[in-house]
Amino acid sequence: MYELGVVYRNITRTEAATADALARFGSATVHEAMGRVGLLQPRLRPIYAGAQVSGTAVTVLLHPGDNWMMHVVAEQIRPGDIVVAAITAECSDGYFGDLLATSFQARGARALVIDAGVRDVKTLTEMGFPVWSKCISAKGTIKATLGSVNIPVVCAGQLVTPGDVIVADDYGVVCVPRALAARTLEAAAAREANEGDKRARLASGVLGLDMYKMREPLAQAGLRYID
Amino acid sequence: MYELGVVYRNITRTEAATADALARFGSATVHEAMGRVGLLQPRLRPIYAGAQVSGTAVTVLLHPGDNWMMHVVAEQIRPGDIVVAAITAECSDGYFGDLLATSFQARGARALVIDAGVRDVKTLTEMGFPVWSKCISAKGTIKATLGSVNIPVVCAGQLVTPGDVIVADDYGVVCVPRALAARTLEAAAAREANEGDKRARLASGVLGLDMYKMREPLAQAGLRYID
Amino acid sequence: MYELGVVYRNITRTEAATADALARFGSATVHEAMGRVGLLQPRLRPIYAGAQVSGTAVTVLLHPGDNWMMHVVAEQIRPGDIVVAAITAECSDGYFGDLLATSFQARGARALVIDAGVRDVKTLTEMGFPVWSKCISAKGTIKATLGSVNIPVVCAGQLVTPGDVIVADDYGVVCVPRALAARTLEAAAAREANEGDKRARLASGVLGLDMYKMREPLAQAGLRYID
Amino acid sequence: MYELGVVYRNITRTEAATADALARFGSATVHEAMGRVGLLQPRLRPIYAGAQVSGTAVTVLLHPGDNWMMHVVAEQIRPGDIVVAAITAECSDGYFGDLLATSFQARGARALVIDAGVRDVKTLTEMGFPVWSKCISAKGTIKATLGSVNIPVVCAGQLVTPGDVIVADDYGVVCVPRALAARTLEAAAAREANEGDKRARLASGVLGLDMYKMREPLAQAGLRYID
Amino acid sequence: MYELGVVYRNITRTEAATADALARFGSATVHEAMGRVGLLQPRLRPIYAGAQVSGTAVTVLLHPGDNWMMHVVAEQIRPGDIVVAAITAECSDGYFGDLLATSFQARGARALVIDAGVRDVKTLTEMGFPVWSKCISAKGTIKATLGSVNIPVVCAGQLVTPGDVIVADDYGVVCVPRALAARTLEAAAAREANEGDKRARLASGVLGLDMYKMREPLAQAGLRYID
Amino acid sequence: MYELGVVYRNITRTEAATADALARFGSATVHEAMGRVGLLQPRLRPIYAGAQVSGTAVTVLLHPGDNWMMHVVAEQIRPGDIVVAAITAECSDGYFGDLLATSFQARGARALVIDAGVRDVKTLTEMGFPVWSKCISAKGTIKATLGSVNIPVVCAGQLVTPGDVIVADDYGVVCVPRALAARTLEAAAAREANEGDKRARLASGVLGLDMYKMREPLAQAGLRYID
Repeated sequence: MYELGVVYRNITRTEAATADALARFGSATVHEAMGRVGLLQPRLRPIYAGAQVSGTAVTVLLHPGDNWMMHVVAEQIRPGDIVVAAITAECSDGYFGDLLATSFQARGARALVIDAGVRDVKTLTEMGFPVWSKCISAKGTIKATLGSVNIPVVCAGQLVTPGDVIVADDYGVVCVPRALAARTLEAAAAREANEGDKRARLASGVLGLDMYKMREPLAQAGLRYID
Repeated sequence: MYELGVVYRNITRTEAATADALARFGSATVHEAMGRVGLLQPRLRPIYAGAQVSGTAVTVLLHPGDNWMMHVVAEQIRPGDIVVAAITAECSDGYFGDLLATSFQARGARALVIDAGVRDVKTLTEMGFPVWSKCISAKGTIKATLGSVNIPVVCAGQLVTPGDVIVADDYGVVCVPRALAARTLEAAAAREANEGDKRARLASGVLGLDMYKMREPLAQAGLRYID
Repeated sequence: MYELGVVYRNITRTEAATADALARFGSATVHEAMGRVGLLQPRLRPIYAGAQVSGTAVTVLLHPGDNWMMHVVAEQIRPGDIVVAAITAECSDGYFGDLLATSFQARGARALVIDAGVRDVKTLTEMGFPVWSKCISAKGTIKATLGSVNIPVVCAGQLVTPGDVIVADDYGVVCVPRALAARTLEAAAAREANEGDKRARLASGVLGLDMYKMREPLAQAGLRYID
Repeated sequence: MYELGVVYRNITRTEAATADALARFGSATVHEAMGRVGLLQPRLRPIYAGAQVSGTAVTVLLHPGDNWMMHVVAEQIRPGDIVVAAITAECSDGYFGDLLATSFQARGARALVIDAGVRDVKTLTEMGFPVWSKCISAKGTIKATLGSVNIPVVCAGQLVTPGDVIVADDYGVVCVPRALAARTLEAAAAREANEGDKRARLASGVLGLDMYKMREPLAQAGLRYID
Repeated sequence: MYELGVVYRNITRTEAATADALARFGSATVHEAMGRVGLLQPRLRPIYAGAQVSGTAVTVLLHPGDNWMMHVVAEQIRPGDIVVAAITAECSDGYFGDLLATSFQARGARALVIDAGVRDVKTLTEMGFPVWSKCISAKGTIKATLGSVNIPVVCAGQLVTPGDVIVADDYGVVCVPRALAARTLEAAAAREANEGDKRARLASGVLGLDMYKMREPLAQAGLRYID
Repeated sequence: MYELGVVYRNITRTEAATADALARFGSATVHEAMGRVGLLQPRLRPIYAGAQVSGTAVTVLLHPGDNWMMHVVAEQIRPGDIVVAAITAECSDGYFGDLLATSFQARGARALVIDAGVRDVKTLTEMGFPVWSKCISAKGTIKATLGSVNIPVVCAGQLVTPGDVIVADDYGVVCVPRALAARTLEAAAAREANEGDKRARLASGVLGLDMYKMREPLAQAGLRYID
């Protein structure tokens, strides 16, 4: 249930050093580091391949077919933020194009995550402003109804509270709650530390069955080999 | 982002008189009374027509294909509760059947709202235990992974906090936050007060155009009549 | 492409005798009689089983989440009409409930066909006012944007011109263009004439293979029987 | 990969006593008795509530929009059979109506399972001929292209070999391979034997947590209770 | 409702200068210039990025799984045309590949818009022949049933009349009716005239809130800022 | 119906020369050469454009959200194999990433075909290890439940038996049963032989109507030209 018609100007953002450092681990490692939770639904896809970002969430709640609040949220952006846009009902309209992106980028936003459609993808790609969206659509919107800015929102099935960290890349978008960000950063770093070694062993032909010592638990679970 | 492996035993439920009184207004009126927010996505449908209930939410978070926590949440049910079950990823399995319903009903639960599948619909209907679910499926589940009980969950796109009021009928499921329940009850009652009069006037042939004084704003918006 | 903000008051309706007579053949026979065209997409389903109607189309074009024009179309209804409502983009909101149905019924409408959601299904069923819709939803709508009334619309993938005949039953909704209505009525009657005889023969054990003389064309197409 | 244009006349059906006896356990119990496999996808729904059948599968492979082979399979039906119809690509057309149902019923078929649409649901309900289908559609089909009869088919994601047992009820459709039918019947009976006792205990307020001795494994998995 | 089995050879195309000039504005600007209508549903996506075309529509109506009429429409193509293909029911088959594209291109077609699947995307990209389609599929089609050429069709939810202008780019496909083409061209040009200036101001940090003078209407609508 | 908990170590693979030679014809030609059957559903898409492979199928059956058996199947891979992964119910989780790909590639696998999600697409693209999947998702999986290796599976609607040939490219994935592989190779080669000539004629402006001699059958089917 959402509070409508309000803009929270003061939100507590995750410390920048932590929010920034999470980018390099990517969505998959971060989501594993939190215990396999926090991912937005995979219908959100990047408009171009290769972008990998993290930042602090400012949120906006919009109505179907109405992007009025996009202009309101623009003013609340600070450098290092990622805008997370939720809609009160399913909608595939194109809420965001090159003009808004110019404004967001001028304010220091790193990306937009939106559970709806986006326009002007070619220009956004040239600008290097990444967007994760449900679809691409030229369908325009009106400016008639109030939503809210910086309230907790549900975006693509995930609760996002203003100030949380958003990590997004080619594989998805994950939300790290502010209170867990430092701990998640540590866990992600630990997870990644021995990946290179694992890959080298697997590349040399060692089987995961042996490297992860799975043969015994598989046998205990009843796995039978038939020749 | 969810906290996994925890059961909150003490939750603050909305006052029973308020929670109970909301049932008779139904999901549409309650959702309008809150400002057209709070509805779970319409993919949740009742397993039989005609049930109309309200109650206080106890929540459970489940993993795909795993209904272990259903047994854990059963113990936390008090008379007047409605169980709200969310899944950490999309799943259409049948998490709930007549045995669990017998147990839920014995504990005093009024209904189940689940963003997944349900089994044994014929028996549930005979028992008079209503369920709002995404689908009906005979597919069984395992009992292997911990979720949580009585944490805030996102169910069918809506945040549900334990102790909130759930109102459900043939048209949908709405969540009323505890803090707004009393005010929403008043607003719903006010909304309904003059419905009978309106219906009588419309039945007599009066047009909504005149009853709601829409002709002038329509003309101002530019509506043209062509003969 | 739609003309917005207009209401055509004078439309040429299919002759009532023809429009009325098509109901008893049902959507399947009528659609076959036209050469297997004219059906709206099967996502449109009746809100209750057993209704079988025909009537002349009055059309309304609505915007997502906005049912303002429903009140405008009400005034254009004449006895024997069926309202056909199209939306300019996908939407599952509940555009229509018992108050509007009371008004439509008072004006003589026989049904509503809408490519969106509907509310108050229990009351509509008690009133005997059938609706074919994409879904059932308690989600309310606003009254803010102009659409049009009695322009040709695309509803559930089918072009419907005001004055065409709509035939709807448990199996679907079909649109018969005004110019083809009389011819379609004849063809439907001819189609149905020998159905009773066919059913009796099939019930007695005669195979369709023989009754329809399919064995030779099947053999010519290369069908092989293997014992 | 399918063999096209062939009709296998001699198939080995599961023994009738076994095939018939599985009906009373229903799809959920039978699927559990096989180790939680064998269910067709839950998009297949019964056209009316309450039917619960089992029988031996005769299969038919059809092309999109073409029901010619339905007449060919009719001749291969023996009393106690259930026709399983697969389509070579996604299709929602209405392949089956009251005339074909009359013919199928005259040949002794107990039901149709089809991964496409069906017509004439009202008449089929009156006839007591149950169908599990993907949708209901008045859209007709042509008779132009050869498929096959009694080859193994994939229907709603499940492999069905002619002669297997099909069990269908309000909760789904399950396929029991012929070689496993007797063993599955025993397992289903064993599963059901103590259900009545369990239900009585749960109704008396005993918790599943205690009845199934789940408290220890939950604690070992790390479940924490917070007051 | 469609007329089947006909080919209209003489259609009135939008004047070439107008049809050609619309390309550079793109689908989003053109659709806004028409009052936010005319877009085909966003499920139609380009097979490669960067194509931006306009042209006059020649239409073809096809049956599911049957591309016979594609060869018939080829003969009706004139330089500057875009073929718009509609299907009488949902289908994801691959109707169009490199051979047909060679033929279409030889006749002067600029693009294909089809509410179904397409094959040979790699070759089409090398040829520089853009296609907007619902999906990519290797599934072949037969040549057995008559559709029509150059009748009005509903493609992806939009009515397209032969001779209308089609504008397509990375963001979607829009249909401009012939009677509105000149006026739409003017409106699009006017819309675009001050885009550069707007972008510069937004890039300099001016907010849309101020540039569009939104602060007052937002306040009047009740927007509250909370510190 | 699947046999669970087994690994078949000895499977009969299609002869390597045949399996390898099918790659160059691509999925569309191969599927046509088999009589337009054998394609997996088009929801399976390549993670990068341009890969075109064939190889012998080794199969793995997985449970939703559980990739344990991926490590078991790795050991059964031989050079020239393509892994085909089916899930027992719908799931969009990311079952496969760069570590498993390193292991698969070290064993000689040419590709993965999976009816679920995949992670680490950027690294897989750099490695040149193609995957055809239903979606891309960072969602991780657990290792808890036994599936099977090298049993016949249904993947994206198609039965795949271990040792069959898989052909995959930008347009789809096709399964060629071992018994038909040699014959299909011949048919595909024959099909392709005269494509170059056809393309040259079409490029010169010859119409398919004439080249394929369609004018007479179209006229016989009743096609009318209207000037």
